[in-house]
Amino acid sequence: MSKNEFVLQIPYGTRDFLPGEAACKREIEDSLAEVFDQWGYDEVVTPTIEYLDTLTIGNGSEVEPHMFKFFDKNNRTLALRHEMTTPIARVAASRLAEVEFPLKLSYITNVYRYEQAQTGRQCEFYQAGVELMGMTAATADAEVIALAIESLRQAGLENFQISLGQVEFINGVMKQFKLSAKQQQEIKHAMVTRNLVELGNMLDKSELGKNAKEILKKIPLLHGKIDMLKSVYHMICNEQSKRALDNLNEIYNLLDSYGVAEYVNFDLGVIRDFNYYTGMVFEAYTPGLGFPLCGGGRYDNMLSDFGTACPATGFALGIERIMLALERQGLSISAKNKDIYIGWGEGKVIEAIKRAKELRGEDKLVEIGLQAQTKKDAESYQHAKNYNQLIYID
Amino acid sequence: MSKNEFVLQIPYGTRDFLPGEAACKREIEDSLAEVFDQWGYDEVVTPTIEYLDTLTIGNGSEVEPHMFKFFDKNNRTLALRHEMTTPIARVAASRLAEVEFPLKLSYITNVYRYEQAQTGRQCEFYQAGVELMGMTAATADAEVIALAIESLRQAGLENFQISLGQVEFINGVMKQFKLSAKQQQEIKHAMVTRNLVELGNMLDKSELGKNAKEILKKIPLLHGKIDMLKSVYHMICNEQSKRALDNLNEIYNLLDSYGVAEYVNFDLGVIRDFNYYTGMVFEAYTPGLGFPLCGGGRYDNMLSDFGTACPATGFALGIERIMLALERQGLSISAKNKDIYIGWGEGKVIEAIKRAKELRGEDKLVEIGLQAQTKKDAESYQHAKNYNQLIYID
Repeated sequence: MSKNEFVLQIPYGTRDFLPGEAACKREIEDSLAEVFDQWGYDEVVTPTIEYLDTLTIGNGSEVEPHMFKFFDKNNRTLALRHEMTTPIARVAASRLAEVEFPLKLSYITNVYRYEQAQTGRQCEFYQAGVELMGMTAATADAEVIALAIESLRQAGLENFQISLGQVEFINGVMKQFKLSAKQQQEIKHAMVTRNLVELGNMLDKSELGKNAKEILKKIPLLHGKIDMLKSVYHMICNEQSKRALDNLNEIYNLLDSYGVAEYVNFDLGVIRDFNYYTGMVFEAYTPGLGFPLCGGGRYDNMLSDFGTACPATGFALGIERIMLALERQGLSISAKNKDIYIGWGEGKVIEAIKRAKELRGEDKLVEIGLQAQTKKDAESYQHAKNYNQLIYID
Repeated sequence: MSKNEFVLQIPYGTRDFLPGEAACKREIEDSLAEVFDQWGYDEVVTPTIEYLDTLTIGNGSEVEPHMFKFFDKNNRTLALRHEMTTPIARVAASRLAEVEFPLKLSYITNVYRYEQAQTGRQCEFYQAGVELMGMTAATADAEVIALAIESLRQAGLENFQISLGQVEFINGVMKQFKLSAKQQQEIKHAMVTRNLVELGNMLDKSELGKNAKEILKKIPLLHGKIDMLKSVYHMICNEQSKRALDNLNEIYNLLDSYGVAEYVNFDLGVIRDFNYYTGMVFEAYTPGLGFPLCGGGRYDNMLSDFGTACPATGFALGIERIMLALERQGLSISAKNKDIYIGWGEGKVIEAIKRAKELRGEDKLVEIGLQAQTKKDAESYQHAKNYNQLIYID
């Protein structure tokens, strides 16, 4: 490989957004910023780089192998942020302690995970989301789910579904059957990876009773509408799981008032892949995309890790995943309207510039030729660049 | 320090943008995105992380100590980008080779430099800019300067000046007097740091003739309006410097057609701190800010380092610097209009949600209370959060 080819490469798991792609990305981000704003969420921007200790506080060390790490000049380990919930919890705990609660914050930014790159998920990718802090009520959870749905709609998607679960449901069941910490970890892993075979094998090999095995095998299959949720009550006999079902029921009724109940499916096997969730969890799926567009949930303990106990709930949307879904569903964002190309013959540059100035003053998108050209060349440039109109000055 | 305090810290040279600050940043970025669009520049987004070899290609190794570096799993050195001109040149050389030239690209993003942090310039900071590739003509340079001026105006600034120079002017003088490479480097360093004492000492100690010393000492003082530029012709007697002056003169006449000549001062001591500039260079200054808001220039050789010879010109604006200038000039961006807070009494949440839905449908910014509260509490929340109107449902 020559030196030139070498320097043209970009690192594993990164990408360029070329003109049309970057415009689509910006359009989606603008529409999300507008919705977040309209619902009373204030944007914050945090550093790309944080101390590793800060970023791993809520997640534990298991996220570490997936982080881009390096050292500062005092040999403290830095990392590129792998999600935004932790940095926003840090901001809330450290700098916003005196503000009025509930605190409603939003972000639109890039995050980094050293993982196998896949369609719709590179090692560097873009997320938009909100965090609502200071409320344990179901109203808060319902608001963030309704906002996630509205965000996806404003981004241009219609055909998607929310899978809604509650981590306390399975926690209650596992406690009821007195599972060991190791067993709990294994079951959660099998459920996050949706590996029912692994789950079945693990349970079959265990010393658990028949009833416990049956119920635990069934949980990942518990999905459906509100009727399914109601039918689950008889299956379980512990208060923790019942409270989780009550909570989902309450959230559902609120979502119905928001007029978005049609988007909601319950899925008691959804537990998400971050350790910090403590209540409802949800994901959004769309046909033709094998991974969620969006994920979120309640995390009531993270802020106390930063020294300020405070309940919280929120979600993150994947910008590239929305772009991919729009494209696959033939809903790609309309290309911007390129109004006018001004071409000019020898000696006419001054006139061309003045004309462009006028037209831009009328809010037109105008490109000026940068050298004298024939009308034919100007026409050919106009077409190549998709300008609606040519003004030729000679 | 307790663990909690420890994890609340952020790395040296980084910052959080809290709610009002992030809103101001987004407003400036939106207005810049709109201007770039309106002038026919297409946005591109490149990875935050690139190979070190790519990023240093146009700058040489002297930028390396100022870069955040780490290794990929194959032990190749990665770095966080320190500017956007090089990544965009890479994109242009590698992926856009078949498109119609001139190529007009823009970006709005963050870059990283491991340097002493200062007001208006952290180690991570935000830049917006354009790159115009494929044209050597003065029309291209005039367009980017006019666009820089329009960008600053759209961002809300009025009181600023452009300092315009041409690196070939001093290159011509140094060649005429047969300066060694080392001498040239020393003179450039003194000029970039605006250290006239260092320049004087260095020249006095040299074996250069009286005329050479006088002219070289004078160059950093050559600033003024178009008359100054015209008066410099008699001072020099080499073609390279004269061509540089002709080029500035031509750019100036075009800027006059753009109606922005009043913003332009010539400063033949401006040579900028990146090695890759080959023609006109400029910076924008505003009162009360001791560093440029914006800098740019022509760089005709960088793309050939990537295997595709192509002239280019462009600029970058510092977003935080614009924010600081606006603030210092009392021009801070208007806070967004927070329309309505909806509070509700016991049992009225459903009505509150439905009302919010209606009002958001009318494009109002609406926050809903998340728990039942008294009218008095709702009023106090409304005032604390600066909502124009309270709707209380009981």
